[in-house]
Amino acid sequence: MEKLQALSLYAKFRKDLNYIEKELECSVDSASPIIRQASLHLLRAGGKRIRPIFVLLASEFGEFSLERVGKVAVALELVHMASLVHDDVIDNSNMRRGHQTVKAKWNNRIAMYTGDYMFAQALVSIADIHSPAVHQLLAKTMLEICEGEMIQIEHQRIVDQTLRDYLRRIKRKTALLLSSSCELGALVADADEKDVQRLSRFGYYAGMSFQITDDILDFTSTDEKLGKPAGSDLLNGHLTLPALYLKEDPTFQVYMKQAFNGQLTEQTRHEMLTYVRSSGAIKKAEAMSDLYLEKARRELAALPDEKAKTAFMQIADFIGRRNY
Amino acid sequence: MEKLQALSLYAKFRKDLNYIEKELECSVDSASPIIRQASLHLLRAGGKRIRPIFVLLASEFGEFSLERVGKVAVALELVHMASLVHDDVIDNSNMRRGHQTVKAKWNNRIAMYTGDYMFAQALVSIADIHSPAVHQLLAKTMLEICEGEMIQIEHQRIVDQTLRDYLRRIKRKTALLLSSSCELGALVADADEKDVQRLSRFGYYAGMSFQITDDILDFTSTDEKLGKPAGSDLLNGHLTLPALYLKEDPTFQVYMKQAFNGQLTEQTRHEMLTYVRSSGAIKKAEAMSDLYLEKARRELAALPDEKAKTAFMQIADFIGRRNY
Repeated sequence: MEKLQALSLYAKFRKDLNYIEKELECSVDSASPIIRQASLHLLRAGGKRIRPIFVLLASEFGEFSLERVGKVAVALELVHMASLVHDDVIDNSNMRRGHQTVKAKWNNRIAMYTGDYMFAQALVSIADIHSPAVHQLLAKTMLEICEGEMIQIEHQRIVDQTLRDYLRRIKRKTALLLSSSCELGALVADADEKDVQRLSRFGYYAGMSFQITDDILDFTSTDEKLGKPAGSDLLNGHLTLPALYLKEDPTFQVYMKQAFNGQLTEQTRHEMLTYVRSSGAIKKAEAMSDLYLEKARRELAALPDEKAKTAFMQIADFIGRRNY
Repeated sequence: MEKLQALSLYAKFRKDLNYIEKELECSVDSASPIIRQASLHLLRAGGKRIRPIFVLLASEFGEFSLERVGKVAVALELVHMASLVHDDVIDNSNMRRGHQTVKAKWNNRIAMYTGDYMFAQALVSIADIHSPAVHQLLAKTMLEICEGEMIQIEHQRIVDQTLRDYLRRIKRKTALLLSSSCELGALVADADEKDVQRLSRFGYYAGMSFQITDDILDFTSTDEKLGKPAGSDLLNGHLTLPALYLKEDPTFQVYMKQAFNGQLTEQTRHEMLTYVRSSGAIKKAEAMSDLYLEKARRELAALPDEKAKTAFMQIADFIGRRNY
């Protein structure tokens, strides 16, 4: 299994990422011991820090200042974490990345306020950046993430969905925050306006590909690698791309109905996973992911020849072949 | 019953408040129909718009611009509403101000994301104000409100509390947002720095008095006027000032224990209310409220002689004698 963290770009940014990690830990040093503990638990459960990496890389297309770029990176990671902790309440999830969720280790109330606190800390982090564009973009991103989460609830257990519904959902769920990470990194570094827009589109396309791969892995990976039961998306009533491609298939429809009614046993869950893996749906979903990846690569190609370009290409390649 | 809305200052600001009301409604025009409906339900359930009023008044000590001031007023009211909708989830409240809560009319999930959405909209509202001080203050206020709510949970059903614990809790719960409303209103209007600080302190003291009065009314008012059962605070495990003064009283201790265990019947609730009303605790709490009000008035006295000063004095007087 190859880890994103093993890519050479993580070594390159080790020092900057350590700085951001420290800033993240400082930012959750709350007056409330429970908020502090729950936030640290969440931070230390890891995560790929892909948003900070995107911010750092994008900022290299302008004038890099770790202090300014760090503030934006911290804000984006906090917004991401806040949305995760609120999601776990909604999905009633007890495990994430192989660790107990805040709602499981503490409770729903604490998960809610920990999320609120992290949202607020995100603002504190960027408060003294003198750029309305930065504030507007972060605010708009947070807004659309909320709407995305709400739309995800509205779509839950609804079979009558189109590909367009799915793509709009993952746009708000994932692609937007990666797009904003690139755009904000480039913005605070005063990069050329055209490059800011290219980087924004790169983040969006890479994010779409990334989420589709995530949704595929939820069917094809193991419980151990996922840190939660494979097939969780379907069990939670989320119709992701592979499921969407199979929704007219009579055999799959039986599994889907059982999953949506909470009647999928451990044995039928494994049968369902075998069925999906051997169907054409995975290949079709992979093709869709590749399509977005190709678009992402095309945006990169048009960017000036900075070192960050090679690193972004490396990430794009990784997204295209990751298996966890 | 005298209504805050009947004060002449509401007539004076009718046009500005209507503008803010419209901006509030525009701000919740979400792509998600449920978010839109839930937010409008919340907005239209009313409220005294005391934060916008404080912003408007404070801004009169500088150079008033409805557009700038309106953005801050909308942001503060949205933060307030977001915290209410999240509080209702925590307190499991079905009624507020005589209307169904979002969590009761819809559910906890929707209440959570509606709150998140309103937080995000608050940021959108102030994003293009070029003032790090404004962003820092709003961010810090949101942070402390979250911490206050968490501390309120940590203190829930805990009898071993001091007056200082209570005062710190209501500071974060209410006084801080009113203090920030005054400070932000004065800040965006570029008021004199000394006046900004005086207004900030006025808002803080008035807020403390306001919340103590609120906590008294929860015991002394009627279910009808409150729009929820009198004694709700105690039923929810919150030890407010009158209860704190009575916590060593053996008769009250029995009621308190029943309330904290969810065993207070309708009859004993009424007995408890009669007992508290006839005790000295209400008078003692009123004296504490008056003390803060006097401090608030002293801050006003030191302010320059603007028309807003008379209006603020009117509010202070109202807070001192309101009975709903």
